[in-house]
Amino acid sequence: MCGIVGYIGKQVAIPILVDGLKKLEYRGYDSAGVAVLDCDKIVVSKSVGKLVALEEELGQVYSQSCIGIGHTRWATHGRPSQVNAHPHCDCNKDFVVVHNGIIENYLELKDMLIEKGHIFASETDTEVLAHLLEDYYEGDFEGAVRKVLKTIRGSYAMVVLRRQDPDKLVAARKDSPMVVGLGDGEFFVASDITAILNYTRKVYILDDGEMVVITEDGVTVSDFEGNSRTKEVYDVKWDAVAAEKGGYEHFMLKEIHEQPKALKDTMLGRLEEDKVILQEVDLTLEELAQINKVYIVACGTAWHAGLVGKTLIERWAHLPVEVDIASEFRYRSPLVDKHTLVVVVSQSGETADTLAALREAKNRGARVVAVTNVVGSTVSREAHDVIFTWAGPEIAVASTKAYTTQLEGMVLLGLYLAQVKGTLPSEKIGEIITALKKIPAQVQELLNQAGLIEELAKSFAKVENTFFIGRSLDWAVAMEGSLKLKEISYIHAEAYAAGELKHGTLALITENTPVIALATQRDVFEKTISNVKEVKARDAKVIGLTYEGNTSMAKSVDHVIYIPETMDELSPILTVIPLQLLSYYVSVARGCDVDKPRNLAKSVTVE
Amino acid sequence: MCGIVGYIGKQVAIPILVDGLKKLEYRGYDSAGVAVLDCDKIVVSKSVGKLVALEEELGQVYSQSCIGIGHTRWATHGRPSQVNAHPHCDCNKDFVVVHNGIIENYLELKDMLIEKGHIFASETDTEVLAHLLEDYYEGDFEGAVRKVLKTIRGSYAMVVLRRQDPDKLVAARKDSPMVVGLGDGEFFVASDITAILNYTRKVYILDDGEMVVITEDGVTVSDFEGNSRTKEVYDVKWDAVAAEKGGYEHFMLKEIHEQPKALKDTMLGRLEEDKVILQEVDLTLEELAQINKVYIVACGTAWHAGLVGKTLIERWAHLPVEVDIASEFRYRSPLVDKHTLVVVVSQSGETADTLAALREAKNRGARVVAVTNVVGSTVSREAHDVIFTWAGPEIAVASTKAYTTQLEGMVLLGLYLAQVKGTLPSEKIGEIITALKKIPAQVQELLNQAGLIEELAKSFAKVENTFFIGRSLDWAVAMEGSLKLKEISYIHAEAYAAGELKHGTLALITENTPVIALATQRDVFEKTISNVKEVKARDAKVIGLTYEGNTSMAKSVDHVIYIPETMDELSPILTVIPLQLLSYYVSVARGCDVDKPRNLAKSVTVE
Repeated sequence: MCGIVGYIGKQVAIPILVDGLKKLEYRGYDSAGVAVLDCDKIVVSKSVGKLVALEEELGQVYSQSCIGIGHTRWATHGRPSQVNAHPHCDCNKDFVVVHNGIIENYLELKDMLIEKGHIFASETDTEVLAHLLEDYYEGDFEGAVRKVLKTIRGSYAMVVLRRQDPDKLVAARKDSPMVVGLGDGEFFVASDITAILNYTRKVYILDDGEMVVITEDGVTVSDFEGNSRTKEVYDVKWDAVAAEKGGYEHFMLKEIHEQPKALKDTMLGRLEEDKVILQEVDLTLEELAQINKVYIVACGTAWHAGLVGKTLIERWAHLPVEVDIASEFRYRSPLVDKHTLVVVVSQSGETADTLAALREAKNRGARVVAVTNVVGSTVSREAHDVIFTWAGPEIAVASTKAYTTQLEGMVLLGLYLAQVKGTLPSEKIGEIITALKKIPAQVQELLNQAGLIEELAKSFAKVENTFFIGRSLDWAVAMEGSLKLKEISYIHAEAYAAGELKHGTLALITENTPVIALATQRDVFEKTISNVKEVKARDAKVIGLTYEGNTSMAKSVDHVIYIPETMDELSPILTVIPLQLLSYYVSVARGCDVDKPRNLAKSVTVE
Repeated sequence: MCGIVGYIGKQVAIPILVDGLKKLEYRGYDSAGVAVLDCDKIVVSKSVGKLVALEEELGQVYSQSCIGIGHTRWATHGRPSQVNAHPHCDCNKDFVVVHNGIIENYLELKDMLIEKGHIFASETDTEVLAHLLEDYYEGDFEGAVRKVLKTIRGSYAMVVLRRQDPDKLVAARKDSPMVVGLGDGEFFVASDITAILNYTRKVYILDDGEMVVITEDGVTVSDFEGNSRTKEVYDVKWDAVAAEKGGYEHFMLKEIHEQPKALKDTMLGRLEEDKVILQEVDLTLEELAQINKVYIVACGTAWHAGLVGKTLIERWAHLPVEVDIASEFRYRSPLVDKHTLVVVVSQSGETADTLAALREAKNRGARVVAVTNVVGSTVSREAHDVIFTWAGPEIAVASTKAYTTQLEGMVLLGLYLAQVKGTLPSEKIGEIITALKKIPAQVQELLNQAGLIEELAKSFAKVENTFFIGRSLDWAVAMEGSLKLKEISYIHAEAYAAGELKHGTLALITENTPVIALATQRDVFEKTISNVKEVKARDAKVIGLTYEGNTSMAKSVDHVIYIPETMDELSPILTVIPLQLLSYYVSVARGCDVDKPRNLAKSVTVE
């Protein structure tokens, strides 16, 4: 979460900083600030709320300084407020710091510093960095930073500016991404490439444990001990326009409509008639024979994709799969060893919990396959094998195209494992591939009916509580559908295994409680309808989802949404489309900020 | 769900039927009815709502018939209404039927019968039984019943009365419990022993696939083919008084306060200084060496106990454990074979989903251990090994003492497995046993502070949405805490892994949203507090739970509830106590029917 930008060069810094922060705004937007060096003084401007508030605060006449740092914040320690917004200074205003991540031992450090007489202005963990620098400084800026890095525990990307060093930025990273942009006589530092794409396409991607000193003359990278490191220049090929809304009212709607293309891109070059090709995955039959268990580890929407993956891998490759929430996995002392295949799923490839789980799994000797959307992301670099989802940049906080391409990634992985292990005959693989190839067009069919969902959303907009039910793979999709509605419409939506409702939660189903019942899985269709009847018997208002051609569901529910016919195992990719559209239109009808829901950030880089 | 009583003898039937139904009322209570044979006619009385409504309907002057059947209903097919209440008759009122369970193929049978000219009065599946009997009858009552049993699919316990056979009841069971009470010149049939305990303590427990013909002269049991079966008389040792409220305002409160005793009873005779004795479980080291995976399968509250069991067994016995919802397990094609140990957990031992899972597991060759509270229950009879929880009859729909004793069962099983496998040194086992022995007194300590929780409940009573968060074992308890609140207070409470909240659901946390944060697990305490700060930063109202002596949580939350110090692994048994009390007092404050929440039934014997 949070976004960092720094600049040093010959241009006026503030417009560049604000422009960069705007590109990062989707990562955190509860407050923002910039600091520049003006006439030997550090000048800090901050404001609560989105960046437009900071722009107002800065006004038309601002400092013409050519060096500065900026930050857009998503609160962790200390609520969103002007005083808690970054950048933060020490007592003398000699040092100013911006920081992403969490300093885990900040409380004891703060106590120590207060005892020494330091005065703290904010409730943040970040502020200890500035005071520590003040405390440690003995004539050597970089030396003081190094000493701080040795004192703190936690995850961070930080940039520091010192009043008495007017031509220098010092930055460091651990467990939080950071890049340095290489311009022509000017340099940038940022937590994400998008922040600086307007200015340069040549970057250094910093690794964990690297510190960088940037002056107008150049960039030197070293480790925390001071040993110099050589970096390769990475040439960004991304299209900046791809990150624009392209005519849609919201990024989310644009991304929903990009799904046919994203799904097609993700299968490109990976499907032969009856064979799957995954070039980035290299598991041999001998290696797979050593694997007795698969763990799928992820957070949020990616975790929901993992739940589908479990069923596919178990059914097709006959490997037992456990799906775990990344923040739980790490502390569970999971029974993971060299006989375990760990699959981590993360859109950004920077999700802190997932990354920690990946490292934990590697420490225990597991083979790790990543499913991620971002090339060059930490997850993609640290995993043994990678399946990239080619969804393109996803800007809306509520994930849509990343989810469906993750589902596709699960299908590809499941088929690949079955193929290597020989647990599916090639005719069956061919059959699944044929069905998979039809999916993008079928998603398009569903998108063409968005108007019907928009209509349905009108009556949903007044609801405050709702339940999604389904069995088997429908249950996994129900979880994703309910999360979408929560995230962007603030409706308390909860998903339940349809057969589990009667073990307690049925008490909440009364007259007109809206229930969305997913019934696309043929082997449990009748059982699901039994559960639908239970809620209908309590006068719930039920929207059903099932295949085209199924005439029996309409008899039991108030409204039916039909999805095109496909194999049960692939249906989640279709079923979720109307649920995404429903959440979107409900959010719009309720006047919510679709792309930037309250309290949430796009890529969650703290635990 | 639902309850059945039948009587034949020399006494007036109706008071006996109503009295029996009252004992079963906790199993289903949306409508009720009785049918007796009076002057060669079948006389049916029904009413919607609880039994008191039926008593009013019957009035002071009712039939003096000495044969009859009764039913209290929990709706599955067709909403609660007078016409859908049992008993159900055929067109001519020759046959009258009461039935528990579900007839899966009732729709096609109904269509067939309608085509033949039968007129249906209700929307129930049950009514097809009466019309089928009418259709099949060719001069032989039992023969017609047998033909019906061959035609129908599903689960059932049923009792039939025929107008022209005034001294005979015919009953049958498949996948739904039924007992026959043997009196002195009088006989009873019921879906649960408690219904007839006032009249006799000698019963036949019917098995699946058994049919029984009861006349004043005696009882004959046969299979569905007509082959006679010999039954043993089972002597009920239960204390009828134990099923009364004993001075408490509600069964739930009584059962909450019975927990110290229930927990003590459940460890009785099972603990030596550093050794666990489980006489009903007989797993040798050789057998355990063959086990490479444990599945815990259950529903609702019992599933939550299983989630705790997973962590204990993995930590102590180093066996990988997967916990599954029973209704999902069965249709998942789980990778279960003779190398799998399946643990089923069910208070009643009759939970239909759990029973089906047990059978599925046995079919696949797994060894099955049951944790159940009811001796003689189907689950206890069909499992290979049993750990009984000695909680005594649990009447309140919301489970309390069954849950904590199930947790204790999980501790015992985890220790037993570790002991057989030798994965824990005996000193460590001794240490855990010492801590476990303190638990009943620690629960009592918590119960002594019920007044504090009652006070806290007052402000909670106005809430409509709330979240429970925790990590690791606290997450499992959070699920149980939230389910309690849902079940009896109708508050939409949802549990989240604390680290997962920020991946979407945080959008629902705003000013004064009540959040209950569990932080008893020492290894993740700091991480949990980080998540608490996230919700506090959104101005949520947080109640924290942690150990006595922890002074740091109070700094981060609005109110702290302290539990006595114990080992992290045992803390769930303590942590849940204040949550049970909170739900109880909130339910009372909201004026809800604590013991009989709407829509729910005690033991869920349909899928």
